Amino acid sequence: MSNASFTLSELGQRIDAKVVGDPAMVISGLATLQTASEGHLAFLANPAYSRFLASTKAAAVILTEADSKTFLGACLVHSNPYLAYAELSMLWSPFNKPSNAVAATYIDPAASIHDTAVIGAGAHISAGVVVESGVAIADGVRIGPNCCLGRDSVVGANTHLYAGVTLYHGVSIGADCILHSGVVVGSDGFGFAPSAEGWVKIAQLGGVIIEDNVEIGANTTIDRGALDNTVIRKGVILDNQIQVAHNVVIGENTAIAACSAIAGSTTIGKNCIVGGASGIAGHLNIVDGVHITAMTMVIKSLNEPGVYSSGTGVQPNAKWKKSIARLRQLDKMAARLKTLEQRVEHNTSGIQQDKQS
Amino acid sequence: MSNASFTLSELGQRIDAKVVGDPAMVISGLATLQTASEGHLAFLANPAYSRFLASTKAAAVILTEADSKTFLGACLVHSNPYLAYAELSMLWSPFNKPSNAVAATYIDPAASIHDTAVIGAGAHISAGVVVESGVAIADGVRIGPNCCLGRDSVVGANTHLYAGVTLYHGVSIGADCILHSGVVVGSDGFGFAPSAEGWVKIAQLGGVIIEDNVEIGANTTIDRGALDNTVIRKGVILDNQIQVAHNVVIGENTAIAACSAIAGSTTIGKNCIVGGASGIAGHLNIVDGVHITAMTMVIKSLNEPGVYSSGTGVQPNAKWKKSIARLRQLDKMAARLKTLEQRVEHNTSGIQQDKQS
Amino acid sequence: MSNASFTLSELGQRIDAKVVGDPAMVISGLATLQTASEGHLAFLANPAYSRFLASTKAAAVILTEADSKTFLGACLVHSNPYLAYAELSMLWSPFNKPSNAVAATYIDPAASIHDTAVIGAGAHISAGVVVESGVAIADGVRIGPNCCLGRDSVVGANTHLYAGVTLYHGVSIGADCILHSGVVVGSDGFGFAPSAEGWVKIAQLGGVIIEDNVEIGANTTIDRGALDNTVIRKGVILDNQIQVAHNVVIGENTAIAACSAIAGSTTIGKNCIVGGASGIAGHLNIVDGVHITAMTMVIKSLNEPGVYSSGTGVQPNAKWKKSIARLRQLDKMAARLKTLEQRVEHNTSGIQQDKQS
Repeated sequence: MSNASFTLSELGQRIDAKVVGDPAMVISGLATLQTASEGHLAFLANPAYSRFLASTKAAAVILTEADSKTFLGACLVHSNPYLAYAELSMLWSPFNKPSNAVAATYIDPAASIHDTAVIGAGAHISAGVVVESGVAIADGVRIGPNCCLGRDSVVGANTHLYAGVTLYHGVSIGADCILHSGVVVGSDGFGFAPSAEGWVKIAQLGGVIIEDNVEIGANTTIDRGALDNTVIRKGVILDNQIQVAHNVVIGENTAIAACSAIAGSTTIGKNCIVGGASGIAGHLNIVDGVHITAMTMVIKSLNEPGVYSSGTGVQPNAKWKKSIARLRQLDKMAARLKTLEQRVEHNTSGIQQDKQS
Repeated sequence: MSNASFTLSELGQRIDAKVVGDPAMVISGLATLQTASEGHLAFLANPAYSRFLASTKAAAVILTEADSKTFLGACLVHSNPYLAYAELSMLWSPFNKPSNAVAATYIDPAASIHDTAVIGAGAHISAGVVVESGVAIADGVRIGPNCCLGRDSVVGANTHLYAGVTLYHGVSIGADCILHSGVVVGSDGFGFAPSAEGWVKIAQLGGVIIEDNVEIGANTTIDRGALDNTVIRKGVILDNQIQVAHNVVIGENTAIAACSAIAGSTTIGKNCIVGGASGIAGHLNIVDGVHITAMTMVIKSLNEPGVYSSGTGVQPNAKWKKSIARLRQLDKMAARLKTLEQRVEHNTSGIQQDKQS
Repeated sequence: MSNASFTLSELGQRIDAKVVGDPAMVISGLATLQTASEGHLAFLANPAYSRFLASTKAAAVILTEADSKTFLGACLVHSNPYLAYAELSMLWSPFNKPSNAVAATYIDPAASIHDTAVIGAGAHISAGVVVESGVAIADGVRIGPNCCLGRDSVVGANTHLYAGVTLYHGVSIGADCILHSGVVVGSDGFGFAPSAEGWVKIAQLGGVIIEDNVEIGANTTIDRGALDNTVIRKGVILDNQIQVAHNVVIGENTAIAACSAIAGSTTIGKNCIVGGASGIAGHLNIVDGVHITAMTMVIKSLNEPGVYSSGTGVQPNAKWKKSIARLRQLDKMAARLKTLEQRVEHNTSGIQQDKQS
């Protein structure tokens, strides 16, 4: 956390919150209710944590109107404390820039920049960066150490590439994006034709389009398209170690958690949420507003919004072994059940007949 | 896609296809039937797309003899259009080299090459590359920016390492391989002996042998062997983010899709296909010709060729919860079924006896 | 394997083993029983391999007292041959350093070191390394090529970062750690607040604390905390491609196999073992001594030590399809079973009444 500090009044103005308590109080950082100490601003977004409110050492707390009524200390009253916390958090980010500052362009002497590359005003290019021919880097872009920007790739304004990001040739990244370390964009899709002599590689001739305001987590990989492009629409957030195969399209504001894999040519709609370590097979269509829980195996298109799941969930090993054994006996159990139904049907009929006779 | 262009006749000759239409027609790129425009060559490999044939704007289409009979436009007639497309695709790759060209050796001044390293004719070493002592780089090798080749590693002729590949010491890569960005070859296997004071590391003293014509996807990791080598046989294709543990052996022409993990000392045969996000436990043997579908959990050796699967597949969350609850009741259900069978057996017998008495 | 060689007597002394055979015998390497040749020391740790003992070409073998009694060749007798092998293996590691050697500090001219960074005695900084402001590198640290150490990060004594490791700003790594290539420590946790305009990023203001003697496998990612720290306790071993989300805490000597993912704010106890490709949901608590088998989906806290599992395990595809179809019919099967029980109950009662009447 940076060393910035603000008055409670300043913070209240930023999030349009009512200030309760001394407006001149100095806030030097953010913290949870449990770990806050002197000078910290905390927040209460989840009722499960309300038990920590009475004893918090925070100087002030972001609260809803309702919660503020029973709280005796200083607070910022806001309809959505979690969103308010998110908005204020950026003030303490070490990468926060004053919005009206125009930084000087910096190109480290240990970067290798091709003569034909174009670098915008206020860009920051770190040591070890390699920028190939025809690259266009817009204003205010930050490129961390040892990144590689392949031929004719494009990076939009104020986008931040952390250390060790690789963009292949002809990849396009929008404005205000964040790509974390180890991200690879534009590697070849997994396309091969079988032949009698083995696999014949299909040149991957498409590109990757990443629109504005996308965040991509560490070591995530996004393959280039075979002929058309792989596309990540604006506002998408991707966590770490996600695999996006060739010709996938991910709709606006969709969020995908870590270690998920999306196979080739699948389209995911807008405003979807994909839980961690999920797998989505290729050539499927997932409509807008689908929520897939963690570790789900998606092997068919999902044509209706809603929550979807798969998997069996953890059990003690001994019970699990029994469950699995039973699962494999299910076919036989179903047959036994049917036999029994027929016998009971027959017996009952028999008994009825006996009685009637 | 590069700006190359060819006549229809030239393309037909390359794939040994019959040319229907103007042999002098100029083809400037490849496209799908749906997205093709002027000057594009398209192909029809999958009957699901034949509905796009009549309305395609492609200048020409690669078709089977049968499909060509009903098509009115120009075409290249080939017994395997998908393979023909694969073979032609490479003509538009930006990395395509004229087969008879001898490129000059290039070593970027911002590369660090140890005096004892040997670099072949026509090799291209980019900025930021670090080549340690005793490394041998064969003719025509391309090393992208910021790669690291550890001590005594070997790279075969015409192999291409994209930016940011790491080879540990003593690793051997064959000829005509492609390693995508973020690949790590030769990291330590996960070998530790338990002791009263915690885990004791076992030095990983084996190497990694990757044979010719292997492609390895972005951010895939291949560990070195504990004592013997980890081995990837010729023609193997590995997608992104695959984990190959120490002492694994993968047979010729086996294809493994993204995010799969193969645990230590497992042997996979030739011509296998492993679907994405599958896991294969350690010390197993998978014979030639096994096909494992995506997200399968392989916890025993597979001794017969064939198709194998596991997992439960996606359901709406509410139905999934019921399925899982029922799965856990299966043991009780089985017991109830048995009781019922005994009662019905008894009752029926009883009834029979009643009747007989 | 390095070219070191030792007498059998020297090796015996190092592991406190009884020497049987010529103490002056020269041992030039380690090998398995099956692959050993002249000059090799092998070991027998797993009874499954005892069949190779009689025919091994090893010069000597590490054996238990019991196994040594029937063996005619030279041996080192030790209560725990696997641990003894682990301890001796390090003698042949190419990175093994004589314990009393004080190496000269080396900083490659192609490294970029900020003026304010502090570098300890005997540190080795390779080409292409970028060390930002305020970084503290302790004595004996090895930093491989193209690593990046972000602002104010700290690396403890004798820790080894292989090529291409990225530490974000303010990350702390302990002493005697090993971080393999492609590891990313301190990337932003996946924290966003939903709003009407899309996701609002929450600045990740916590750090990462990695204690002493931790090993982290290739391409593993460890996110920084949102407000508090992500913590990896001493002696933890993490395999390749593991994802550790923000605010996770992993207890001492816990081992996690490749491709596992641990979601945010989950706490894992001491001495746990997590099998490969497992997923652990967020905000859970796993107590000390839990063993989770490979590919398990952990969606609840585990409050008792023991072995836990999930998943259905591989089947031939045709049988799998039946199992899955039956699993989805389970709810109906349960209803049919209940109906049948009621009918049989009723019939039996009816029969009893008939008999009594």
